[in-house]
Amino acid sequence: MSGTSLDGIDVAVVDIAGKGSGLRVSTAAFVSFPYPKKVRDALLGASNANTHTATISRLHFLLGELYAEAVEKTCRQARIRQNSLELIGCHGQTIFHEGQEAPFLGRHVASTLQIGEASILAERLGVPVVSDFRPRDMAAGGRGAPLVPFVDYALYRHPRRGRIALNIGGIANITAIPAGGRPEDVIAFDTGPGNMIVDALAAEATSGRWRYDRDARLAAKGEVDLALLRRWLSSPFFSQRPPKTAGREQYGREFLEGLTGRIEDRIATATAFTPASIALSIQRFVLPRMRIAELYVSGGGAHNPGMMAYLAALLPEIPIHVSNELGIDSDAKEAIAFAILAYETWHGRPSNLPSATGARHPAVLGKLTRP
Amino acid sequence: MSGTSLDGIDVAVVDIAGKGSGLRVSTAAFVSFPYPKKVRDALLGASNANTHTATISRLHFLLGELYAEAVEKTCRQARIRQNSLELIGCHGQTIFHEGQEAPFLGRHVASTLQIGEASILAERLGVPVVSDFRPRDMAAGGRGAPLVPFVDYALYRHPRRGRIALNIGGIANITAIPAGGRPEDVIAFDTGPGNMIVDALAAEATSGRWRYDRDARLAAKGEVDLALLRRWLSSPFFSQRPPKTAGREQYGREFLEGLTGRIEDRIATATAFTPASIALSIQRFVLPRMRIAELYVSGGGAHNPGMMAYLAALLPEIPIHVSNELGIDSDAKEAIAFAILAYETWHGRPSNLPSATGARHPAVLGKLTRP
Repeated sequence: MSGTSLDGIDVAVVDIAGKGSGLRVSTAAFVSFPYPKKVRDALLGASNANTHTATISRLHFLLGELYAEAVEKTCRQARIRQNSLELIGCHGQTIFHEGQEAPFLGRHVASTLQIGEASILAERLGVPVVSDFRPRDMAAGGRGAPLVPFVDYALYRHPRRGRIALNIGGIANITAIPAGGRPEDVIAFDTGPGNMIVDALAAEATSGRWRYDRDARLAAKGEVDLALLRRWLSSPFFSQRPPKTAGREQYGREFLEGLTGRIEDRIATATAFTPASIALSIQRFVLPRMRIAELYVSGGGAHNPGMMAYLAALLPEIPIHVSNELGIDSDAKEAIAFAILAYETWHGRPSNLPSATGARHPAVLGKLTRP
Repeated sequence: MSGTSLDGIDVAVVDIAGKGSGLRVSTAAFVSFPYPKKVRDALLGASNANTHTATISRLHFLLGELYAEAVEKTCRQARIRQNSLELIGCHGQTIFHEGQEAPFLGRHVASTLQIGEASILAERLGVPVVSDFRPRDMAAGGRGAPLVPFVDYALYRHPRRGRIALNIGGIANITAIPAGGRPEDVIAFDTGPGNMIVDALAAEATSGRWRYDRDARLAAKGEVDLALLRRWLSSPFFSQRPPKTAGREQYGREFLEGLTGRIEDRIATATAFTPASIALSIQRFVLPRMRIAELYVSGGGAHNPGMMAYLAALLPEIPIHVSNELGIDSDAKEAIAFAILAYETWHGRPSNLPSATGARHPAVLGKLTRP
C-alpha cells in the first residue's frame, strides 16, 4: 500500500484463510519504507492537481469507453451476437515507450505506458479482458516490443520457404522466419519509421484534412532530397544490431520540427525513407543469416504505392506480396495479433518471443480483468 | 488495437482454436474507427515526447522496482521465506482520482490513475499479482473509493455493537457498521482531510526535515484560527451526502498556497480541522441512522495526540479506541486490507461494497498479472 499522503511503501505479510464471516486474518509482518526524497518529489510533481496528469487519467478512461463502443459497433455491423464474444485482447494506446534503460532519479529505468482502461470493456461487454501486454516482457528484461513476431511465427512459418512478415504501421517492423525455423531462429525488430512521418506531413500539407498521403499523391508532386535521405539513413539506429525498437519519440514532433524545404519534397523524401530503411535493415541483418523466399506486407503502408514501388526496387531479389494472400487481412493483422496474444494468456501460455524482444525468458503477457 | 500512428481503433473479431503449430485463426469481422479529432489531438499532446508523460511512465516502472525491493526486505527482516508468498496485492500510488464525472472532450468522464507496474513484482517475486483495484468499481458506476469498508465489514462487524472504523491517512474515512448489519447497511465515505494538510505544513515549517508533526509539537506552538476553521468546515463537501470521496486534488498544493498567517497557527488550525470534519460527518450522516457503541482509529493520525484529543472532545458519547485493540495493527491496516482484497479477487469473489462506493453492483476488483 502506498497512500495519498505519499509517505512511502507499507508492506504487510498476511496469512488469510476462509471467506465471508469465516474470514481469518493474521499479520505475520509489517514494515514501512519511506520513499526516497527524489521519488517523493517526482510523485508530488506528477500528482498534485497537475493538469497534464488529469488529462492522461481522463484519456485512459475515455479510451476505455471508445474501445467498448467500437466493439459494440463492430458486432452490430457484422451481425455478430455480442454475447458470443468470449475474450477481449486490448493493446491500448501507447503514450510512452522507452524499451532500453535510461537514467532516472539515480537509477536506470526502461518503461512503457499504454492507456485505455480494460475495466470499462469488461463491464460494458461482460467478457474477460487481457490488456497491457508490454510491461510483462520488459519486467523479464525485454524491450516490450515487438510482440507481433510471436503471431507471425505462428501464422507465417513454412517448412521449406524463408519468409519475412513486414508491417508498415506508424513504425515499421519485420519478422524474418527461416525455412523450418524454430522460435529462437526468428529475427524480428523495428526497422524505423513506417507511415508516421508521411502521415504527419500530409496532415500539415492539407491543413489537417488528410491523415495520410492518399495513393502517394502528395509525394508524387515532390522530389526526394537525397542529401536529407542519406543523413536520415546515417542515424546510428540503422547500424544498431537487433533486437531494437523505434517509437514516436524518434519520429514525432521534434523530428518534424527540424525539417525545412518544400512540403511536397519533404513528403517525397519521407516516402522513400521508410522503404529505404526497411531494405537496408533486411540487407544488413537478415539476408546474411537466412535465405528469404518471399515477403508479406501488412499495415497502412501496403496501401501506399510510392512506398511499395520503392520496396520492390530496393529488394529486387525478393518477391513482395500483401498478407491477404495468406488469408490475413493486411489492415487487420495487428488487431488479429492481439486477439491471439490474449488467447495465449487466457490459456496461461507465454507469448513473447525472446529472440525478438530480448527478454531473458518467455512470459505470460498482460493483465486479466474479470467481467 | 490502437497503433502508434494514433489513427484510431481497429477491431477484429477472430475465431481462434488449437495451439502451437495447430493454431487456427479465422477473422469474422474487421472494422476501423478513426479517433474523434479532439481525442487524437489530446493523445498527440500527451504522447509526443512529452516530458511529463515520460516522468509518469518512468515512475510507474521505478515504483514497481521499489515495491519489489520493499517486499524482499520485509521478508528478510521478518525471516519469512520469500517462496512462501502465494499472492501479492498491490494498490499502487494514486496520482489522480476523480470519482465523479467531469466534462472532458465533449463527454463526461470519471477516472483514476494508480502507478507502480505489477509485472515487475510478478517477475521479481515469482508470485501472481493483483493490482489496480479502483477502476473496476468505477466502470460499474462507483467512485472507486473507499474500498477498505469491505474489509472493515469483514473484520469489525459485531452482532450487538454498532462500530465505526476510522482511518486517518492522507485523507480520512469512516466505515460505520450497525450492530448485526448487512453489507448494504454499511455507511462509508471520506470525511475530508486526514494528515495531508498538517504533513505538508510540517514539512514547510521544518524546511522538509519533518514529514509530519511529531507528537503534535508544532500544532502546540500555534493557535487555532477559528474563523479559518469555520470557513473550511463550511465547504459544500461537508454537506454533501455520502457516498463521497476526497483527494489530493482538494487539499493539495493549491489549497496550501491559499493560506496565510503564522505557520504554527496554520498547523494548529489544520490539526483541529481533521477531527472537526470527522465529528461533523459522523453527527450529520451516521448517528441519525444507527447507534454506535465504539470507534476504532487506524492510520498515521492515531499517533497525533492533538487530533486524538480533539476527536475525544468532539465525540464525547463514543468511546475511542485504536484498532490494535481488535488485533489489527493501526499502521498496517490499509496494507492488510489490500492483501485481503487481492485474496478475494484471486478466488473470483467481488470485493467492492456498493453502499460505500456507489457502484451499481459488486465487482471482482483489480487486474491479475502472472509470474
